[in-house]
Amino acid sequence: MNEFKLIARLTRSLPANPSLVAGPGDDCAVLDCGRPGQYLLFKTDAVVEGVHFTAQATPEQIGHKALGRCLSDIAAMAGRPLAALVTAALPDNFDPAFVQRIYAGISALAQRHAVAIAGGETVRNPERLLLSVAMLGEVARDKCVRRGGAKAGDALFVTGELGGSLAGKHLDFEPRLAEAQWLAQNFPIHAMIDLSDGLAGDLRHILRMSRVGAELLSQAIPISRAAKLQARAQSSPPLLAALGDGEDFELLFTVAGGDAVRVLDGWKKQFPKLRLTCIGRITAAHGLKVRDKTGLHTLQTHGYVHFA
Amino acid sequence: MNEFKLIARLTRSLPANPSLVAGPGDDCAVLDCGRPGQYLLFKTDAVVEGVHFTAQATPEQIGHKALGRCLSDIAAMAGRPLAALVTAALPDNFDPAFVQRIYAGISALAQRHAVAIAGGETVRNPERLLLSVAMLGEVARDKCVRRGGAKAGDALFVTGELGGSLAGKHLDFEPRLAEAQWLAQNFPIHAMIDLSDGLAGDLRHILRMSRVGAELLSQAIPISRAAKLQARAQSSPPLLAALGDGEDFELLFTVAGGDAVRVLDGWKKQFPKLRLTCIGRITAAHGLKVRDKTGLHTLQTHGYVHFA
Repeated sequence: MNEFKLIARLTRSLPANPSLVAGPGDDCAVLDCGRPGQYLLFKTDAVVEGVHFTAQATPEQIGHKALGRCLSDIAAMAGRPLAALVTAALPDNFDPAFVQRIYAGISALAQRHAVAIAGGETVRNPERLLLSVAMLGEVARDKCVRRGGAKAGDALFVTGELGGSLAGKHLDFEPRLAEAQWLAQNFPIHAMIDLSDGLAGDLRHILRMSRVGAELLSQAIPISRAAKLQARAQSSPPLLAALGDGEDFELLFTVAGGDAVRVLDGWKKQFPKLRLTCIGRITAAHGLKVRDKTGLHTLQTHGYVHFA
Repeated sequence: MNEFKLIARLTRSLPANPSLVAGPGDDCAVLDCGRPGQYLLFKTDAVVEGVHFTAQATPEQIGHKALGRCLSDIAAMAGRPLAALVTAALPDNFDPAFVQRIYAGISALAQRHAVAIAGGETVRNPERLLLSVAMLGEVARDKCVRRGGAKAGDALFVTGELGGSLAGKHLDFEPRLAEAQWLAQNFPIHAMIDLSDGLAGDLRHILRMSRVGAELLSQAIPISRAAKLQARAQSSPPLLAALGDGEDFELLFTVAGGDAVRVLDGWKKQFPKLRLTCIGRITAAHGLKVRDKTGLHTLQTHGYVHFA
């Protein structure tokens, strides 16, 4: 059973209450704590030694990644992070100095984004390090961007360059908080998600929640240098890395087609150093298609699955 | 290095921001999210296979314990729980039905206390099961009870009976949410904590944060039947179990000496089935002392450490 199927089964009927605006199925849970005009965003994310990082990662990078993943989810809903709690599950014979350096990595990123580290705990996990971060954020109700708002005719945008994250970016990415907040403040963003499972996989989350399809332009997809190098070494098309590799932590979002040029123009002035690319459009017809020189092809697979 | 020393080192200088009212050092972190008159309570707690439960525990009990520990911390600040996220770190070859039963245990307890389970995630932790719960609660600012408010002359109360929790109670305790909220609504509670590290250890947290001492009356301390049976089997005094055993998940609190009788009388009417006991008093002189038939003795050790 894969993760998505298990989660679907576990979350079929969970207890709710009036504070819960949106539970499982978006980047963060959305809560109403009674402050007029505001929602709370609530998220947890864990990284595990040997699964999300290897012995090659520095402790500062491990801390950065653990906090950064949660911050990227707050960004995906155009939220502002408030506070985080850190659970450090430590293997037997851990080195206290190593754990302190993990916290230094967490703290450096937290300070850049004005996030309070409000505490947490340490527990024993004898065989390996596991770091879990719980994050609380806030967002104005009318600026909260969900996955389910994409409409046929929307332009589909992605920040940065995709693929090959395992070569290094997965350990030192910068969550796109300022960018997402600027987008939601200045444009009616219909749907947004952060890229953690790979472009194809995460786009499918938007399509499913929005009940629409999409057509990608293969030549428009921004492919990272790392993905190109990796593709050359593996003799595989670099586009597959950009579609399938996980942990890009870029933003994928849709706006009405009529807003696309204004978004691009505004972005270039606001974030001149970070690429923003229109990579396709949302279609009424379901399914995910890619257009290349030879025509229109249906993409059957999704994120993390290696393409043929 | 023990857990307390490591946490002290890690939390020496963590990033803060204006939303943070209280970080590490209390039962929950306290946040101000801008709602007048209200605070948010934020907490995480993890249980690990072989550390916090064994193979004898049913999956429902494991789920109950994981959520219940966080709820007990919300209770310790007289808060009301809102929503929780569950991180299930699953060993290789886990049984999906087992995980579903863990969620059933979580859900049953959540429903009893009107807590929303707002989502979470599953990750791989190859060798053993680890469950981490992140909890969000709320409390009126003027009813939020901290650890640092105990004053010399206060009466010291404990709910329920103490010790021997490992015989079963640690897997099926009921967090004292209604009791704590009733106390804070009806009396000026000076300081409160939930008993997770053992009476002696947790009382020391109150004493340190409040800069006071305490004198316990050995004959007043309510000792559970499980603690008495355990003491008989081990030929050790049952009082040591009540002082040192962890995971009672009862409330320990202080009120002004002049309020003590009113608290006891009100409690008996409100919660006739749950014992409330005055076990001693707060003193200006620092240190933790126990008075028995032979006189006044200083307690040197604290929770979880076996007494001589």
